[in-house]
Formats: sequence, C-alpha cells, structure tokens
Amino acid sequence: MTAGRKPPGLRDVTRGRILFGGDYNPEQWPEETWQEDVRLMGAAGVNSVTMGVFSWARLEPRPGERDFGWLDRLMDLMHEHGIGVVLATPTASPPPWLGRLHPDTLPRGADGRTERWGGRQHFSHSSATYRRYAAAITEDLAARYAGHPALTLWHINNEYCTFDYGDEAAAAFRRWLRERYRTLDALNSAWGTAFWSQGYDTWDGILPPGDAHYLKNPTQVLDFRRFTSDMLLECYAAERDIVARHTPHIPVTTNFMPLWTGQDAWRWAAEEDVVSVDLYPDPRDPLGAQHGALVHDLTRSQAHGPWMLMEQAAGPVNWRGVNHPKPRGLNRQWSLQAVARGADAVCYFQWRQSRQGAEKFHSGMVSHAGEEGRTYQEVKRLGSELAAIGAEVTERHVRADIAVLHDWHSWWAGAHEGRLSTEVDLPDVLHAWHRALWESNLTTDFAHPEHDLSGYRLVVVPQLYLLTDTAIDNLLGYVRGGGTLVSGFLTGIADEDDRIRPGGMDARLRELFGIRVLHEWWPLDAGETVACEGFCGTLWSEEIEAAPGVTETVRYRGGELDGLPAVLRTGRAWYLSTLPEPEALRELLGRIAADAGVRPVLDGLPAGVEAVRRGELLFLFNHGREEVKISFMGTHRDLLTGMTVTDEAVLGRYGVAVLKP
Amino acid sequence: MTAGRKPPGLRDVTRGRILFGGDYNPEQWPEETWQEDVRLMGAAGVNSVTMGVFSWARLEPRPGERDFGWLDRLMDLMHEHGIGVVLATPTASPPPWLGRLHPDTLPRGADGRTERWGGRQHFSHSSATYRRYAAAITEDLAARYAGHPALTLWHINNEYCTFDYGDEAAAAFRRWLRERYRTLDALNSAWGTAFWSQGYDTWDGILPPGDAHYLKNPTQVLDFRRFTSDMLLECYAAERDIVARHTPHIPVTTNFMPLWTGQDAWRWAAEEDVVSVDLYPDPRDPLGAQHGALVHDLTRSQAHGPWMLMEQAAGPVNWRGVNHPKPRGLNRQWSLQAVARGADAVCYFQWRQSRQGAEKFHSGMVSHAGEEGRTYQEVKRLGSELAAIGAEVTERHVRADIAVLHDWHSWWAGAHEGRLSTEVDLPDVLHAWHRALWESNLTTDFAHPEHDLSGYRLVVVPQLYLLTDTAIDNLLGYVRGGGTLVSGFLTGIADEDDRIRPGGMDARLRELFGIRVLHEWWPLDAGETVACEGFCGTLWSEEIEAAPGVTETVRYRGGELDGLPAVLRTGRAWYLSTLPEPEALRELLGRIAADAGVRPVLDGLPAGVEAVRRGELLFLFNHGREEVKISFMGTHRDLLTGMTVTDEAVLGRYGVAVLKP
Amino acid sequence: MTAGRKPPGLRDVTRGRILFGGDYNPEQWPEETWQEDVRLMGAAGVNSVTMGVFSWARLEPRPGERDFGWLDRLMDLMHEHGIGVVLATPTASPPPWLGRLHPDTLPRGADGRTERWGGRQHFSHSSATYRRYAAAITEDLAARYAGHPALTLWHINNEYCTFDYGDEAAAAFRRWLRERYRTLDALNSAWGTAFWSQGYDTWDGILPPGDAHYLKNPTQVLDFRRFTSDMLLECYAAERDIVARHTPHIPVTTNFMPLWTGQDAWRWAAEEDVVSVDLYPDPRDPLGAQHGALVHDLTRSQAHGPWMLMEQAAGPVNWRGVNHPKPRGLNRQWSLQAVARGADAVCYFQWRQSRQGAEKFHSGMVSHAGEEGRTYQEVKRLGSELAAIGAEVTERHVRADIAVLHDWHSWWAGAHEGRLSTEVDLPDVLHAWHRALWESNLTTDFAHPEHDLSGYRLVVVPQLYLLTDTAIDNLLGYVRGGGTLVSGFLTGIADEDDRIRPGGMDARLRELFGIRVLHEWWPLDAGETVACEGFCGTLWSEEIEAAPGVTETVRYRGGELDGLPAVLRTGRAWYLSTLPEPEALRELLGRIAADAGVRPVLDGLPAGVEAVRRGELLFLFNHGREEVKISFMGTHRDLLTGMTVTDEAVLGRYGVAVLKP
Repeated sequence: MTAGRKPPGLRDVTRGRILFGGDYNPEQWPEETWQEDVRLMGAAGVNSVTMGVFSWARLEPRPGERDFGWLDRLMDLMHEHGIGVVLATPTASPPPWLGRLHPDTLPRGADGRTERWGGRQHFSHSSATYRRYAAAITEDLAARYAGHPALTLWHINNEYCTFDYGDEAAAAFRRWLRERYRTLDALNSAWGTAFWSQGYDTWDGILPPGDAHYLKNPTQVLDFRRFTSDMLLECYAAERDIVARHTPHIPVTTNFMPLWTGQDAWRWAAEEDVVSVDLYPDPRDPLGAQHGALVHDLTRSQAHGPWMLMEQAAGPVNWRGVNHPKPRGLNRQWSLQAVARGADAVCYFQWRQSRQGAEKFHSGMVSHAGEEGRTYQEVKRLGSELAAIGAEVTERHVRADIAVLHDWHSWWAGAHEGRLSTEVDLPDVLHAWHRALWESNLTTDFAHPEHDLSGYRLVVVPQLYLLTDTAIDNLLGYVRGGGTLVSGFLTGIADEDDRIRPGGMDARLRELFGIRVLHEWWPLDAGETVACEGFCGTLWSEEIEAAPGVTETVRYRGGELDGLPAVLRTGRAWYLSTLPEPEALRELLGRIAADAGVRPVLDGLPAGVEAVRRGELLFLFNHGREEVKISFMGTHRDLLTGMTVTDEAVLGRYGVAVLKP
Repeated sequence: MTAGRKPPGLRDVTRGRILFGGDYNPEQWPEETWQEDVRLMGAAGVNSVTMGVFSWARLEPRPGERDFGWLDRLMDLMHEHGIGVVLATPTASPPPWLGRLHPDTLPRGADGRTERWGGRQHFSHSSATYRRYAAAITEDLAARYAGHPALTLWHINNEYCTFDYGDEAAAAFRRWLRERYRTLDALNSAWGTAFWSQGYDTWDGILPPGDAHYLKNPTQVLDFRRFTSDMLLECYAAERDIVARHTPHIPVTTNFMPLWTGQDAWRWAAEEDVVSVDLYPDPRDPLGAQHGALVHDLTRSQAHGPWMLMEQAAGPVNWRGVNHPKPRGLNRQWSLQAVARGADAVCYFQWRQSRQGAEKFHSGMVSHAGEEGRTYQEVKRLGSELAAIGAEVTERHVRADIAVLHDWHSWWAGAHEGRLSTEVDLPDVLHAWHRALWESNLTTDFAHPEHDLSGYRLVVVPQLYLLTDTAIDNLLGYVRGGGTLVSGFLTGIADEDDRIRPGGMDARLRELFGIRVLHEWWPLDAGETVACEGFCGTLWSEEIEAAPGVTETVRYRGGELDGLPAVLRTGRAWYLSTLPEPEALRELLGRIAADAGVRPVLDGLPAGVEAVRRGELLFLFNHGREEVKISFMGTHRDLLTGMTVTDEAVLGRYGVAVLKP
Repeated sequence: MTAGRKPPGLRDVTRGRILFGGDYNPEQWPEETWQEDVRLMGAAGVNSVTMGVFSWARLEPRPGERDFGWLDRLMDLMHEHGIGVVLATPTASPPPWLGRLHPDTLPRGADGRTERWGGRQHFSHSSATYRRYAAAITEDLAARYAGHPALTLWHINNEYCTFDYGDEAAAAFRRWLRERYRTLDALNSAWGTAFWSQGYDTWDGILPPGDAHYLKNPTQVLDFRRFTSDMLLECYAAERDIVARHTPHIPVTTNFMPLWTGQDAWRWAAEEDVVSVDLYPDPRDPLGAQHGALVHDLTRSQAHGPWMLMEQAAGPVNWRGVNHPKPRGLNRQWSLQAVARGADAVCYFQWRQSRQGAEKFHSGMVSHAGEEGRTYQEVKRLGSELAAIGAEVTERHVRADIAVLHDWHSWWAGAHEGRLSTEVDLPDVLHAWHRALWESNLTTDFAHPEHDLSGYRLVVVPQLYLLTDTAIDNLLGYVRGGGTLVSGFLTGIADEDDRIRPGGMDARLRELFGIRVLHEWWPLDAGETVACEGFCGTLWSEEIEAAPGVTETVRYRGGELDGLPAVLRTGRAWYLSTLPEPEALRELLGRIAADAGVRPVLDGLPAGVEAVRRGELLFLFNHGREEVKISFMGTHRDLLTGMTVTDEAVLGRYGVAVLKP
C-alpha cells in the first residue's frame, strides 16, 4: 500500500450493485460491433467491463508511440451507457517489438531456453527494460484516464504467473538472497550446502535452480519461489503506485488464479484494494461446486470481506483436453454461489467470444451463436437476477467459526522433488479437508498460520509441512486459549529454511498431539488404503508411539501398523496420521466441530444441497439435477422469485433460493 | 509441371507389366553380393529397383568430388538383367561434411535446438547452401544417367517431412507471408493479432511459431504449416526441373508418406508425373486392410488413375514399440489389394535387409534368413502372380460414385492446440467414415472440397473444419445440381484464415443442413458415448435448434441434449452432429448411398470380405483366417489360378481371387 | 591395477570382522553432534565409516585453498573410537566455483544443454580442467592421510554414471575412435555408414550421438557407451593411481550402482582392489529379496570372492514416486542375506539422516526419530549379530555350479531404439532367469561370455544379443567339453560391431541349438502370451525350422506358430525361443540343472524360503511374514541365537538362521 493513501475499496466500485460484466476486447471487432455490444450489454444488465488487458500493441504500436483514440471512444461509449470500466495496464503481453528490440526483456526457462513472443506473458519480471516500458505505458494510461468518469477500478497486468531463470533474474535472485541472508555463511547454513558439496564462496556462484543432473537443493528451490513471487509483486506494486498517484480515489486490483502456486497470495492480497480471482471449474467435475466454494472462501478470507469474481466462463474453456459447455442453469448457479460466499462482482472472460486467436473456442457471454444462443439468453436472465438482489447483498459479510490454514511457503517446501511421496499433493489434501466441511455445510474461512485465530472455534490444518516458530507459537497459544485444533499429517516437519525439525516433527507439536516417537512415515501407494477402526485411510500412514497423556485414539487395524494410533486426541488437539476416506473425514470433522460448538448452516439437508448465509440472507443451492425439498424453520422471502416460502423450499435442477427472513 | 513439357507417366515405366521390386542399397554390400542379388531378383520376377536414395556421401564423399563408378556398374548390371532403375536424387540425407562445413544447412526445432547429422534428413528446406549442393549433385546425376537405358523413373529426395524454425527459415517465412498478405495490416487482420497484443509493426518482428509460454496464434501456426509444405515443394520442384531438363521423357515422382500431415498432397501430386506412396500398416491391426484401402483410394485419387506403391514391408518394420512380422499370405494379399485399388507398381523398402544401421531390423524382400526364409519364398510367389496378371491389369481404372472430401489446410487449422477436444483427431475421423463405406464395399474416391464433384452421386465430408468460400459454393452447387451430401460435425466452422464463421458455422451450410441455431458444442470424453435413437454416438455432440425445413432427424435420447437432433436431413443434405458407432455409421451411409443410387460392388458378402472392381476385373479378398464362400452371378476366370469359377468362389485364409468375366 | 603393486584386498580391511557402518557426513552437523555420533556408533557396533564423499567444497572452499582441520579432527576421533575410515576422494561433486570459473568442466546433455551446479555430478569426464583439479585435491588428501591409522580403504568418487555430449567429450570420442579403428574406412565399415549416407570423410565430422531427427546409428551409440565407460574408468584410474602411490598397502574401491547400464563393470572390477556396490531394493517389491540376491551374486562374481555392500538404506529412500520404509526385521534380513551371498561389509548411506539438502527424506542408520526410533534400535541389534558371526563368516567363499552370463556391450547394443520390441528389456530378462534359479535355491555365479566356464556344470544365457567370435568359441568349447548350456532368445544375433550375423543368428550357434532356419522373430505385445505345450510363453516367440539333429522340443500350440518348436534341445544345448512364465521356467531350469548334476542347496523348502551356503555355513531366510518350518538333516548350531537345532528349524517373520554343522 502506498504510504499515506487512504485505501478505496470494492464498495467504491459497486455502490450497492453487484458488478456484472466481463473482459471486453473491442479492438478485435469493427466499431459497428461496438454498438451491438452496448445494446446487448444493456439488455443483460451489464454494468462493468474490463478493458485494455491485452492492448499494449494497440496502445503503443511502435516504441514510444501512443494510440489512445480508440480507447477514448470506448471509454466515452461505456460512460454514455452507464457502464463502468475496469481499466487494465496492458503489461501482461508486451508487443512483438519489445522482444525484438530488447531481447533482455524475454524470460528464460529452467532449461535455459529463451521464451519469445507469439503467445503471451513473454516478459522477464527482473528485466529493467521491461519494467521501464511497463511503467511508461502505465503512466500515460493513468494520466489520460485519471479523470474519466467511466473509470471505476484499476486492473494491473493479468494473472501474474511467470518464471525466469535468465541472467538478469539470476542477478536479482542474488540481490534478493543478500538481503535475506546478509552473509554467505547464513545462506550456506540455511541451504544446508554442506550436503553434496554445494558450499558457495561468492554470491556470484549462486544460480537459479535450473535443470540439474539430479535432485536440486530444496531450500534453493524454495527461495527461488519466494523470490519469484516477490519479483512479480514488485512489478505489480510499481504499476499500482503509478496509477494510485494519479487516482488516489480509484481502487486497484490484480486478478489471481485460484490456488495458484506462484504467488504468496496472503502477501499479495495485503497490497490490493480489491481482491479478485479468476475461477474455471470443470462443468463435468462432480466436485466443481466444492472447488468453487473453496476458492470463494479463500478469496473472501484474503479480502477480509467482499471480493470480486473477475473471470469465469459462461460456457466452455479451451485449455482442457476436452472442454465441456455449462449445462442449462449451471452458469447462473455457480455465479450466485460466488455471491453467497461473498462476491460483490460476477464477471467473465469475456464479453464476446473471439472469432480469432488462441482462445476463439473459449466461450463468451455472447457466444458464437450470438444473441439467440442459449448462453447469452442465460446471461441475460442472470443479469436481471443480480440486479434484483444487489442492494440486499452487497457489502454483507459471511461469518465463519472455522478456519482452514494454508500457507504458500509451506506448499512450496513440501512439494520438493525429493519428498517421500509424489502422491501427496497439497491442493488435493486441501480440497479433501474443505470438502468434508463443505458437505456438512460448515462454513469456513481460510487463514495463514501466523494470523490471529482467536475468533475461531475450530482451526483445521490439512497440512502445513513448514511452520515457522512464530506459527507454532500461534497454534499452541490458540489451543491454550481454548480453541480446538485438528491437524493432518506432514505438519510441522520443517522450519522456515526447510530444515527437518529434530524428531522428524516439531517437539512442541508432538507434545500437543500426544506423539512420543514418530518412528517412520508410511506413505501409501496410489489407490492403496489402510484399515483403521471404523474407516479406511488413504495416501499416508505413520508409525507413531503415543505419549501417555493421549485422551483418545483410533487405531490402525491389520498390516504393519496394527494397533498403532491412526488418530490421536490430546485435549482439544487432534492429529490424523492418515487421510480418512471422504465420508469418514466428514463424520469425524462434523463431530469435532460439534464438540467445539460449531453448527452447520442448516441441519439435515439432502445430499448435494449447499446452504450458506451472507449477512441475514440464507442461500440454498441444489447441485443435483433432480428436484429436492429443503426444510427449515419460519417464513422467508425468496429474493429471486419474490415469493414467500414457509418451512420448506423446493429447488429444481441447479436450483437456487436466496431467502430473507 | 515444367512449362511446355508433355508429361510422361507411369505407363511409360510399366509398359504393360506391374512394377515389382524395391529400394536397393547395394553400397551396403560387397560386390559379390550383387551377383547373388540379381540371381534372386530374377527368380522372384523383380523388374524394378530404386537406387541412390541415401547415397549422397558415397556419390560425393568430399565436397565437390564425384564417385559414380560403383553406380555405373550397378546401372549396367541392372540393365543386363532386364531390371529398370528408379533413380533417386540423394538429397534426403546430406553427408556429414555438409553440416560440418555449412552449419547453415542444419534445421532448428521448435525449441530452437539445431539438429545435427548422425540420423537422416538433417537439412533445412530454406537453406540456400543446402539447395545449392542438392542442385549440383542432382545436375551431375541427371547428366550422367540421362541416356542410360536402365533409367525408368526419377525419385526425388525421400519422404519430405521436415520442419525448420531457424533464422534462415524465419526469413523465408517472412518472404512467404509478404507474398501472401502484401501488407502488415492484412496479416494482422488475418492472424487476429488484436488478441493478446500480438500486432506486428514490422515484418522483421514475425517469428516461426516456436515453443511459447502458452497457446500460440493459430493462424500463425496454420500459415507456418502452409509455408513448410511450400518450401519443401520448392525443394522438390528445383530438383524435378533439373532432371526433367535432362530427360524430358522420363517421369518424376517423390514418395509420400500415407496421410502425412506435413504436405498438402493435393498440391504436390499436381507437380508429379507419377504419384507414389509408402505404406506400412501394422500386421496386427484388425483394420490394417482398411487403412491400406484408404491410402490406396487417396493415392489413386491424387494420381487420377494408376499409381505406385513405392514402399511397403515384406515383414516387420522397426519403428513401432513392438514390431510384428507379416503372417503367411498377408504380404501377398495386401500387395494384390493395392493392385485392385489401382496400383501398377508393388515395391518394397527394401530388397535385402540391412545387416547394419538404424533399420537392420526392418524387413527386406530377402530377410536375414536369406533365400530359404519364408519371406523371400512368399515374395517369389507373389512376383510370379503379378507377372501373370500384369497385362490384364495395368492402366485399368477403378471407378467410384462416391467422393470423400479431405483437405490438408482444414486438417492443420482444426488441429490447433486450443481446440475444444483433443480426442477429435482428423485421421481417426477419416478412417471411421471410410471404414463404414469400405465395409459395405462401396468404392470411394477422395477429392478436394474445391474439386469438380459433379461426377459423383454421393459426397461425404467426414470433417472439414476450415472451408473457403469457394469450397462452400462448390458444395452448395453440388447439392443444387442433384448430388447427395453428407457431412460430419466440425465442418464449415472457420474461413481460410481460421476465423470462426458468424454463428459458429457457415450460415449457408447451416441453412443447407437445416440448423437454425448451433447453441453449443458438446464434446465427449474419451470412451464416452451419447445415446441417440437407435445407436450411440461417440466423440462429439451438439446442441442444435433445427430449422423448420428439416426433412428428417434422429434425436438424442436422455442427458442434456434429450430430444435435440443428432442427425438432420434437409433434402439431399445430411448432417451428423456426432460420430455414430461403426455399425450405425455403416448402416446409415449404406442407406444414404442406396438412396443416392450407389450400389456396393457385390451384395451380401460375408464379413471380412472385400470386393473391388478394376476395369472389368473383380478382385475378392478374404481378410480372415477362416475359409469363406462368396456368391456372385456368372462365370469368371480366376487370373491367379487360371481356373474357371461359376457363381461361387471359395477363399481360404488371406485368400485372393482376380476374376475376369 | 598399477603395475608392480601387490594388491591389498578386502581382508586387509575386515581383518576377521564384518565391516559395519556407513557414509558419515559430519560436516553437516555441529561438532557436539560428533560426540553423540561416536557414542551411538559404539553402541551399535559400527566399525567403519565412509567420509569425504561430498566434501570437496569444504576441503577446498576456494580454488587451491585447503581446509583439512575438521577432517583431521574427525579422523582422530574415529581412530580414538576404534572406527576405521573409508576415505573418499570428493570428486563426484565439484564446488560451485569450479563450474563458475571453468565452464569447460561442465557436461552437456544429448540435447546440447549444459548441466550446471546446484545438484551433484556436474562434471565432464573428458574435461582436462576437471581432471587436473580432481587430481590435485586427491593428491593432497592422499598425502595428508597416507599415514593416518584410521584409514582403511580408499573410495574413489561416487557412483560414476555421467554422460557428456559436449565439445571436449566429442574430441575425446574421436581420439578413442581413432585408437579403436585406426582408419576411417574401418570405422565406416564397423558403423555401416553406407546406410543413410553417413560416411565420414574426416575424423572431425564425427559427433557424439546427440538428439537426432530420427533413429541414430546403432554402432555409433554403442561405441559412445563404450567410450563413456572408458572415460569414467580413466577418471577412476587416475585418482586410484594417486592414492595407491601414497598408500600401496591400502586397497581402493569405487562403489557401483547395481546392474547399472553406464559402466562395463567386468572391466571396472578388474581395476579395483575391493569390489563394492550400492543396493536399494524397494521394500514393497515382492521380489526385492531376489533382486538383492542377483546383485549379490553379480558383485561376488566380479570380486571373485568377498565383496562390500557399500550403501543400502536402513529405511526408505527418497527418489521413488512413493518411498516405503522397511518393515520391522527387513533391514536385518536383507543385510544378513548379503553376508550369506559373500558380503564382508554391511554399510549404509548414511549414518545420520540429513536434516537439510536433497536427501533429507532418505533414511539413515539414525533416523530423524533418533536413538529411540525403531530404525536405530534395529541397526543396533544387527550390529551385535554381525559382530557375533563375523569371525565365522569373513573370507569364506560361496560356491556355485551354475554361471549366468552377462555382458554390458551386449546389453548396450541390444537396447538400441530401432529394435523389434521395446517390451524386451535386458534387466527384466536377467531377473526372470535368475529368479527361476533363485526360487529353486540353485546358487549361481555370474560370468562374462569370454570367461573360463569350465568350472561350471551349467551355463545359462538369458540373452546375449551381441557375441564376439571369441565368446561364441568359448560357448561352443564349453559344450564340447561336457557342459550344459541353456540360452534364451536374442542371443548371438550381432557381432562385435552390432552387425547382424548372416541368417539372423550366428550359424555355429544355430547348429549347436538345432535351428535350421530362423524365419522370423515374433515379438509379443505387452501382456500377451503364447501357448506352448505345457506352459505359456511371454515377451517373444520365433518362427523356427528345426534341424534334423534336434533331440527334444516343446512346441507352440495354436496361432501362427502352431507346431513349430518353442524350446529345442540338441544334446546338452538348450534354446528357448520364448520366455516361459515364471513357474514353467523354474520347472524347466530345475530339470536341466538336475540333468547336469546340479542340486539345490536344500530340497523341499517351503515357498519364500531361501537357502544359501557360504563356506560350511548354511544360511536360511524366511522372506514371508508367516512362520515356516524347514527340515534338513543333522544337528547345527545357529550362530545368531547360539541354540542347537536338529533336523528342523523354525523361522518367524523375516527370520534368519545361520547354521554351522
């Protein structure tokens, strides 16, 4: 955050409406199409478009030249029609001339090869030249549109996600390391370079961890990920500071990819006025709605309140092996689900499906089928519904008694190539734990392990391989303060430098959970299960000797671990040394939550029905294709239909109700 | 074709005989083996050998030196024994010294790495130096053997199939683009560079579409494929013009790989005097014979008559994971099948199996087992049979009432990485449609969508994703003129620049087929099927709103598309929005063909029996291992046995009959 | 071997004890941990540690500097505690400064990319600079510790396994080729460069066989593998000669990887005083014990007697997809199995599990769980058992009547990418044949095909694709001399230059086995079997015409090969043209062995029980988890328990008995 600036926020953009719209790339179309666009936007209730994301070559067709005329006309056109503009800095995709004239702006891969233009995102985050050109176009863009009445929000770059292993990045990496470690001794110690004769005698000898003969140094890899996230954040902050200087009253965002490995999103979110995310669940994924809910919960937690769904698809995407369209009603349902979980903006990539280019099979709000197509017709209906509920919904908060902990540094360290099992993938583990809570309609926030957790009744740690001492103290303090903590395996293994804690797991945590000796990790093969009392475990198991103080255990049954504890409880601290199958994990977490005084949003819901409260509103979703009946107490008004419902609601296929008491 | 030259043809080579022989690489053997070779060739009825394909290093052991003596002796030896020589320009595999002294002759891959010698085909099609050396050796070869009585046919290079992403190729690509588009504006428009900020401000900024960060520009990729085919064709034409200048009376060919993606074979075939192809079905493939038939039909259509099977294997190849030999009788059967479908030449790679080098496990007509080996013994029998039927067969034509349309540009565009389903693979789709016709003994030609189709009763379009306006007019005119047209899905989607047609499919075609709105494409997962009235569809389905004028439909049953049309007929135009399972497609096409007045070669054949007519001869093939009885009308003479058969023929395992009324 | 040096051997190190210990990397730990280490070592009976393997950067922190102080203290500490030191030259992993200051020391991959530091083994075997620095540090190390009383054995480098395709390696390859072939004509002939126009006109034109457009020249690839093995051996020999000069009385070894493709281990073993190997079977592999036995047998044969197990894991490794720990008792059992099969040293990588670096999840004798952990507790028990049996075991020999032949050159040639079946993998085939013998408790040596075989009653050739004339003469002489020979398919196919023998298989071998014509190879698909009389064959089959003199055959049943011989016996020579399923191969080899007068160690053992004799001691192993009873004749003392057993032993889960008559 730029010092001294009172941060504007999403409320300054929404002003009581749910934002509805999407990326708009009119430079791909003749101007006559623009008129058609505003007509269709108007009919669909579109009130926001994002422009300029990939317009650099158009705005600066030759180095230093500027062509803003077309954008002037579009800004005016939008304003005329009452549509706000999310204006993007176009720096995600430099024009071909930049790479041609300045090869130093091009990134190099782990294999040393230079990436060239012809796709997108071919820029080095460390390139001084790139940053200079990016700053210049950002400066001119901000200066030109600072006072334009259509401007509502700044969108910096797009889906920051690149790596660079080239020479300029190597130099920057060394500078970053000097700042972190000050001395080579400290670095050699943190990286454990005594192993495999990797001791550095000069800073100059340090390289990005490119392709190597065999396993790479894990802390070097970890630091390179930290560095990369920080370099991208520098790029973001530089552009943010420019636009904020011109328009202190206009908030700034950059759009995340959901649960993306490349950015420490906790740290990034703190640098944004508005937190926004792109979200593309597979319409065929039976757990697509849960994946959506997880991303909603995570983004809401990063935003500490309402957030922005910057991109989703009205129909199919084009980057999977097989790209399925959204069946009738699904786009509406998933959009309203985002609203239920805190979104005050429902936007798409993109307004009008492209006829050319690499994404011409990625859907738009207006598909190739045009106005008559089912896709646009459904968008239109959704637009009117969002307009109807907007005033009741925006700026309302979702409250949760449960926090799920997640940390990017832990993810990075735990994913090292030399780990015990490549079957253990953190996103899968996170999804498994979140699913157990979601299926029980237990609303959850996400939190960082060093956050203040005292407001939560239950803290869930699916897996935090790396925990700083501060984080460990935080967890211990949380339990001491009366909180209930439940943790999965591979938690507390490594310190901040990815140094294994003595005993294979932090001693304080072992004491907390009642683990006397952690003899061996027993990872399971793909598809293998391990029998426990009452359920089967997956992915992992452990040879643990319990401490005397353990209150309760579930034991392994049969096999090498027969009789050893699979689940341990010591007071309010639970430890799961395996990942129970979905139903068992749901049952177990439900019980733990109940003991901790946490209730589901509604009890006794049919399978496949999701309930979530936002403010006083109760949102209900039927994720199935068969009609369901839902019982609850009292009389509500369904804001979508305007009808009054008493004690029971009926939801058809992909049905949604937004009930106000 | 060189202007003013009256083209010689295959008839000038065959002169009433079926060519029989193969690649002969005597430089791998001591001269005493040559004597053995001609003895075994004589015994087997070999009348043609191909020499010099990989002899460059032998002919030009050092830059500019020439060593023709060994080839002189071989040419003479062949002539002595009455064996014609197909003489190859040796330019497919330059000698090591060329790359060493002229690194600019080496191609670079999409990843920027230079390919070096040590294998074969390590030449850049765009290299001026390569072309100069290739022209020089071609010139001297042509000059030396122009008058040699053994020379029957020129064989230019071998299986043109290379790519180059290097600097000289990049420059050539830019020249090619300037010629195609004239202005950068035209190129930017055709490529849709407004998407992802790819607008070019100079020709110099344009690169070959090498590896990129994410999806590449599809039209750039399409144009690079067009360019590559054209560059290779330039290489071919340059050598062809040299030899044609020396020997205007000797025809010229280059050998295609079957259904190879790298060459626009329609365009190439027009530049050849003789169309030849290499064909290597897997002996284990239950549809190997159909694959053969497809390639025969395609090659015959490119040749507009008799064609040349330049390479096949008498036994196993060595480039599959597991390479199976040909069971007893299969080599004979597949060779005669090629003759039935128009081949006037049955040749092999290679005469004598190599003892050394990368292909020493690729079979030869004389295998490692030698004269006593089963392989040679079967070759010998085949040779005598071909000699027996030659006079009755050569130059006779195969007639077809059905044309299957295929176009390389459409294939290239439709294969872009950013498409909706990677499960849809054009060769598979082509094979599926051809199979349905082949199993019904409905003889088919192939044709280009802009060819004159008026001679056909039925035109079949398995898939033509890209169609030019000319092609669309051609199809519309064909139907207006009384023809029956049946098309599969993903046809008419894009224009010549791979720009999606408004509505997602060309409006004229939608009207032709009775499609009012094409709402969404519904690709199917691998192995998934969709129920339709009476059959299951595979690979794809569509959400279509039919137009009022539709004559007949088959509907989807169940699922999201329940009740929507899967197959539409509007007059004589049929559209299939899914790929029916094999039996259903066969039944449907059989019915459409019958309605269009097309009859199978023979009715009521047992499964696994193929019947095809060439001129007045009726060829029958039993592709099974069990004896079958085949009924037909009248008395014929079996040219293979000399026996008379009346009303019925009995074919044993892999049996063949060639019946003359 | 350095001329004139009377070689010391393993007995000079063991002196009546079994060596017990492992790699020790104290530079990763503070000095206070060293005290803890020697205490735990003492308690566990550790008598040997390997130091310095990856200490180059510590010993030479900057070019030319030396830091031996820490190692001095450790050598003294070990000596104080009666622990011998296997001292390693640290040349496997150069310090970062070497690559930085001397990029010519870095190797390049087949794709031309330079490998850089950050992992390990980033050195070019051909780099003069690398060799110079390696010699210098070796010289100083040897000089310093030549007289140190703790020094027992030199360990040169570590797991030599690198390739280099760079320019200096290319030059060395050319020198190597000049020495091998003298003239380019000889090379062109050996490589068969007449194929694909690869004829070389200068030595300079020859490249390492890097990535190519299509299949590479197989003999070039073969020679490059020979060259690579020889270059690495030069590196080894140079360091060996230095240390031997300083300490002629101290033996020298380098640790092999088991059945590793990169070194001609027969040739290497001849250059070592002590043969040592690293061995990491997967604890989950049901045939892990057999894999161990195979490596034991191979290493013992290379050593011509007792050998050293240099590295194994006390628990999991960290380089598989899923890395399983060793269940209780398995580490002990597999260690004693190595002793039974000739090991006089049972060592580990590594003493104390690392807390940092790429292998921190690779187990140690002291695991992360520390002294209380099960792993260390089991190590301790094993140490005391080894101490108890040491005097009875060391220097005793294992005797075998069967030799299994294996040759690296044959492996290399047979693995060429252009072969008939990629399903045929020599290590698999070797394991299948060895398994059949191992499961019958038929003790086997390994031998090279040119070794003197006259001491064996039965010689088994799983597959020797390439056989020199000398080897063929050796085999023929062996059978003539009364020996029984049994061979699998793909034997005797190629000569030393990988030139296919006329007839597809050496004529003398065909005569020996009774093969008149080998018509075709019929490789089988993955998972496919072929029916034979009484069993099923896998992987391969052949179309063979038997010679009149064949004594006995087993025939194929059904399919294309119906009635042809699958197994042929001609006198004492057997040929198997397929790989019988495990039970059938065991039965067949058991019968052949019995006929040749070879008896199992014990008859009638339960499944899963292994018996092997070392000297007069009988070792028994129960590889199952259920108790078994084993019957034998007479009274023995079990050296592990001190108990007397008569006629029967009972072995529990993973049980072991060491019985002395």
